[in-house]
Parts: sequence; C-alpha cells; structure tokens
Amino acid sequence: MLERVPLLVKDLAPYEDDAGADAIAELRALAEPFRGARVLHVNATAFGGGVAELLGTVVPLMRDLGLEAEWQVMHGSDEFFGVTKSIHNALQGADVPWTLEMQDAYVDKLRENALAFEGEWDFVIIHDPQPAAILAFLEQAAINRRGSAKWIWRCHIDLTDANERVWEFLRPYVERHDASVWTMPEFVPASLEMDRVVLIPPAIDPRSVKNLHLDQPFVDEICHQYRIDTHRPIMCQVSRFDPWKDPVGVIEAFRIAREQVPGLQLLLAGSMATDDPEGFHYWELAEKARAGDPDITMVSNIQQVGSVQINAFQRAADVVLQKSLREGFGLTVSEALWKGRPVIGGQCGGIALQIREGEDGFLVDSVEKCAARAAELLTDPARADAMGGNGREHVRERFLSTRLLADWLRLFADLSG
Amino acid sequence: MLERVPLLVKDLAPYEDDAGADAIAELRALAEPFRGARVLHVNATAFGGGVAELLGTVVPLMRDLGLEAEWQVMHGSDEFFGVTKSIHNALQGADVPWTLEMQDAYVDKLRENALAFEGEWDFVIIHDPQPAAILAFLEQAAINRRGSAKWIWRCHIDLTDANERVWEFLRPYVERHDASVWTMPEFVPASLEMDRVVLIPPAIDPRSVKNLHLDQPFVDEICHQYRIDTHRPIMCQVSRFDPWKDPVGVIEAFRIAREQVPGLQLLLAGSMATDDPEGFHYWELAEKARAGDPDITMVSNIQQVGSVQINAFQRAADVVLQKSLREGFGLTVSEALWKGRPVIGGQCGGIALQIREGEDGFLVDSVEKCAARAAELLTDPARADAMGGNGREHVRERFLSTRLLADWLRLFADLSG
Repeated sequence: MLERVPLLVKDLAPYEDDAGADAIAELRALAEPFRGARVLHVNATAFGGGVAELLGTVVPLMRDLGLEAEWQVMHGSDEFFGVTKSIHNALQGADVPWTLEMQDAYVDKLRENALAFEGEWDFVIIHDPQPAAILAFLEQAAINRRGSAKWIWRCHIDLTDANERVWEFLRPYVERHDASVWTMPEFVPASLEMDRVVLIPPAIDPRSVKNLHLDQPFVDEICHQYRIDTHRPIMCQVSRFDPWKDPVGVIEAFRIAREQVPGLQLLLAGSMATDDPEGFHYWELAEKARAGDPDITMVSNIQQVGSVQINAFQRAADVVLQKSLREGFGLTVSEALWKGRPVIGGQCGGIALQIREGEDGFLVDSVEKCAARAAELLTDPARADAMGGNGREHVRERFLSTRLLADWLRLFADLSG
Repeated sequence: MLERVPLLVKDLAPYEDDAGADAIAELRALAEPFRGARVLHVNATAFGGGVAELLGTVVPLMRDLGLEAEWQVMHGSDEFFGVTKSIHNALQGADVPWTLEMQDAYVDKLRENALAFEGEWDFVIIHDPQPAAILAFLEQAAINRRGSAKWIWRCHIDLTDANERVWEFLRPYVERHDASVWTMPEFVPASLEMDRVVLIPPAIDPRSVKNLHLDQPFVDEICHQYRIDTHRPIMCQVSRFDPWKDPVGVIEAFRIAREQVPGLQLLLAGSMATDDPEGFHYWELAEKARAGDPDITMVSNIQQVGSVQINAFQRAADVVLQKSLREGFGLTVSEALWKGRPVIGGQCGGIALQIREGEDGFLVDSVEKCAARAAELLTDPARADAMGGNGREHVRERFLSTRLLADWLRLFADLSG
C-alpha cells in the first residue's frame, strides 16, 4: 500500500459564515449522489508545499460530505525526488538536463508504486508529475488492477513554456487518465489529446490555522519576535526562496519604494526543507542582496516560522507581494486578499486569475513597476484598505475550499454520466 | 565555532502586564552591572524539548536587558546522541548498559567540541550532560583557552536515582565548573563537591506562541480539527510518548474516571522526532492501550501539532494531567496553570514545586488516585476553575521567565563578587 496520510477532521457547517449558506446547501446537494463514493488522492508529500496544504483541507471536507475520501503519499527516494524536481523545473520552462538515467529512475520508482497500489476506488486523483505514471504501470501488470475507477490527473503547474522533451515523456502517462484538471486554459499544452480537459483553480481554507482570525495583540507579539515593527509600514512576501519567486527582485523593489516611504520594512518569509541544498543556495543569494539592511527581515521555519506566524505576518502587512516569474497559482495571494490586504503580483500564471488589476491589487512585470505600485498603495492607506476589502469579497466568491469541492463533485458527476 | 542559533527578539516591556511593574524594575536593576557582559549558553539542540524552549526565551530577554547573550549548539552525531540518550536515561535511574565504547564516543566528541569552541566570554552556561565536558577539554589543550570566563553547569534532570557509574563518569567534568545550577535540592547528588551549588527552577514564557491568549473560537476550531468536542469534558496530557510520562497509566486513569464522568474525552498530545525509533515504539504501546477507543485522541507533530495547537488544547482542557514518574520540571504543568486549568501531576521531581496540593491541583502516585482526583475536579467545575485561578497566580509569582532571569543575574553577581 502507498502511505496513508493521517487526516484532520473538518466540518462544513462553520464554513457557512465564510462562504454563505447557499454555497454550503449547493455543495451538500452536489455531494448527495456520491455518499459512500471511494475517492483516493495521491501525491508526493504529506508536508510542505501547496498541494499538501490543499489536500489537508479537501480530503477531510469530502469525508464530512459523506464520501469515503482518503489521501495516500507515493513511495520515493532522494534520487527519485531529485529527478522529479528536474521534471518540475523543466515543465516550468527551466533549462535542465534530461537523461535516459533520469527517465529510468522515474520509471523504476513508478513501477514500484503501481505494485504497491491497493484498494478499490470510484475516483483516483493523481496530483502533479511525480505519481503520474501509476495508472500506466497498473494497466501493464498481468492482471488489470485498474478496476472500474475513474482516474483524474490534476496538474498544479503552469506548463506554458514546458520543456518539450520532458513533457513528451510524461504525456502518454497523462493521457491514459479519464480527465485532466488544470488551473487555467493557458497551462494546457496544445499537444495534449484527452476527451476531458477541465479547469478548476485551487482555493484556500478560511478555517485553517493559516487563515483563521487572529487578534491584533497576537499579531503584534509575533511580529515583534521577528523584529517587525507594526507601527511602521510593512511590505511582505511569503514564498520559498527560489528563482521563480524572485526574492532578489523583491528586495530591489523594496529599496526603490522605501525612497518614497520612509521607515518601510520588508519581510521575506519562506519555508526551507533541511534536505534541499538549492533552497539554502537561494537563501544565501537573497541574504547577499539584503546586504545587512536592518529594514529587511528574512525568516523561515529555521526561525520557527509556521502557519500561525505566516497568518500574523500577512495580517500585519500594509501591502503583500507575490512577485513570481512563474506561478501555477499563488495560494499566498488569496490568503492575503482574504485578510483584506491588497496584493501586488507577478504578471504570470494563476496570479492573473486572483488579482483584478486596480481592484484588489496590481499585476507587475518588472522591479520598477512593482516598486511604483507598492509606493502608490503605501502612501494611500485608505485605497489600500478598500482594495483589500474588494479582494476579500473576490476570494469569498471564487477561491474558498467550498468552491473547489463543488468543482470536484461536478467533475465526478460528469465522469459518472 | 559551535553552531550559533538564530534568535527571536523579545522585549521586556510587555512582560509588565504578566509579571508586574515591580518585577520588571527589579530585573532591570539587577541587569545594570552586566550591560555588555558576554554570555554564552551551550546545549545540544536548537529544536524540541524543554531546554531549547527555555533558551529561546532567556537568551533574547538577556539581550533586551543589555547583555551580549548568545546561544550555540554543540556538534553531535547519531552515535553521540545515542550515547547521551543513554546517559540521560541512566541519570534518571534507568538500567542501561554503560560501556567503554560509549565513554570513548562521548570523550571523542567532546574533545572535538572543545577544539571548535571560540570567543571570549564573561559567563558560559553549559546545559545538561551532552556538552558537560567542554570545559575540561578546553583546559587540557596546550593553550588554556578558558580565559577569564565563569563557567556554570545547568542540570535540568532529576538525579535522585542516578546510576552511580554514569554519574561518577560525569562528575569530574561537572566539578570543574565555577557553579552548578539545579531545579531542587533533592536532585543534587551527595557526592558532588562544588563551592557553589545553586537552586533555580525553570520558568515559562507568557508571551510565547504556546502561552499567548487565544480566543475561544480559535480554540474550538483547533480542537474540532483533532476530533475533540469542546462541549464535552476533556482531560489532557501534553508530553512525549515515553515511559517516564506514563501515557498508558494516563489511559487507565481516564477509563476509571470516565465511569463517573459520562462523555469524558482524553487527549494525549506529544511530539515525535522522526529519527527516534523509541518514540514510535512507545506511541505504539499507547495506541495498543487505547484499543480503538473513540474517546481517546493521540496526536503529535506528525498530525501537524505545534505550539499554537498545544496552547489551544491546554485552554480547552477541563483538567490537565502530567502523570510523570520522573520529571526534572514539567513546563507543561506551569503552562496549564497559567491558562487557569487545574493540574494533576505525578508525585515526583519538580512537579511538587509547581503544584500546591489541593490549592492548584493534586499530586498522585497511582493510576487509581489519578482517576479519583480527575473525577473529583471534573464533577465540580467551579472548584476546578478556582484551583486553576490559584495556579495562575502561583505561576505569576514564581514560574515566569522574568523570575528565571532575575535568578541568573543574581548568580552572575555572586560569581563576580
């Protein structure tokens, strides 16, 4: 068996306060035909990253709706995850080596996972490239162990500039699924041949520790512990330290904005995997760009930053950045908007879905534009608050977990019809 | 150099609300002669466990008082920490093998740490047995690198029943220090020959994420995520899964108490190191004792339990247990009392300092007594609340970080006189 992930319990009822009674009633109606349906989500990791965060909410809520939903994590190894990291980067458009040895390492591990796969399911949802070939190798086995399940491949990545060779390697595995799910139409490669290509953007959980309401004294205390002065203006970006998130560009934009906003502080908060040397490398690059500037604070889980601290930082920020150069979907964008903070995002991928230009934030494609928009919002707090308020309503309509669940249930209905 | 631990920033001013203006004024006066004093704390780990938690508060507060305080972590290895875990268990009275190979592994690693030791200090505080021999090996080096520093050994362990051979191995290393610090007089072995043997119990940080005030809706939501029903009575123990904490005894006591308190729930919350097979073994033993009982919930960091969740669990509990069989000091006892919850503690070690029998909780030495006291408090909520209130005041007087800091400063003054 793959590794079963222990689940939190989530109860839909209190989500009425966030999403409205109508949305919850509709959700319950959509779920009715699927009471008892056996649903399995498979991904590569139980901790860290947006996919694990999404599953930590979606699977418990599916259970509360009466589905027999489960979450399992595939088997891996350091070598395998090295290869899938290259796949991830290549699909996002990076120039990475792609060798036969890497393909073999992928195939071997996926065969092993197909052999370990167990259970009878109605729907199997495979997340991202790591477990994408399980179905293919299940069908290759002497006994067809696919059963009557409908298989769905959920791609969380922006494939706009995907490396052709890597994508062509994956494509046959993907195409065996009954449907594929994408965040935006732009992400779907033209070469993909599948009957069902469905668009479902991700969503945030208003009742997770990352998003639950926190009182101001709690926010102040947490910020203080990280040298952030809540009486001075704060710019904040929450994301991994990697080139796609452009932390160095954020630092440059901060320096320009600070000229117009005396006392401005920048907080870069991210998470570092202790076994990810790349993360430390990009942390060092950002640290170098920081050049000892006392108004720039860089923190991560190494400094004990977890969900509740991120929650506090987003609430304390006067303006939130997500200056990504490539982004499937920026959960942190919707998180910040939900907290009523305006967001300046990179003009790329899913961020363009989340921010309505000039309404709840701005989209930018350069350090200079980012700096100018930040200064604009920081010098007009009333406008910043109004945009944050718009953003909260936009998230309420389109980017809460309840909407995401409804979309999954509609797809199940479609596949069952 | 040993590894420097990144520090949070802590500011004494808001502690006035918790400890009172007089205590803060006294603390500032005590610190005045030590402005600029170079203080180094050394221990074995930056994460996990009570010592790391204490240092995470004490070092930043010393800095806020004007001392140049730092925290460094010694170098180790899996083998070395295996040996020091045996030392720890032997000092607590367990029957563990103690071989020449183990002594050699300890000595080799400590020599290595002495060579890596750097800096000029006024006070060096060595925590627990792991780094206890650094001073000895520093003095052995060709050049005496001790400088003019005063060295203090801080023992967090209850040595009442210490294994004689292991203690005699450590004793010469310990005795080189200028002072040793203990939680209670009972913990100090009769054989110890030192001029300065000082008593300083640990303390809790009222402004850490584990202890800051949380609103009831936040508490309810967190509990719900872990299947805890805040409308039914809750018994809770927060501690590692190991025999000294007696999780199986807690489960037995719960079953007896439940007979008088229908609907009672038990929550066992602990942290598990992924590299500690022993922890998983004792988790399994507790899981077996639980025997699928839906009213008993066992959670750990594997289920994403961190400081803010522990905070919520302690606030949600009607009665908190710390049924230890051996305990240097139960931080969780003072944490729960600070939240106004009465605590039933094992009649052992530092717990007897923290709980005043019949005033803010009870001390017990058997499953049956534990169950009877729990039922007594659960069936009389008004009395439970009153005892919790007493406990909060007792913690305010004796077990907040501000008192701990004052004690350290008094010891520095004593050593400088």
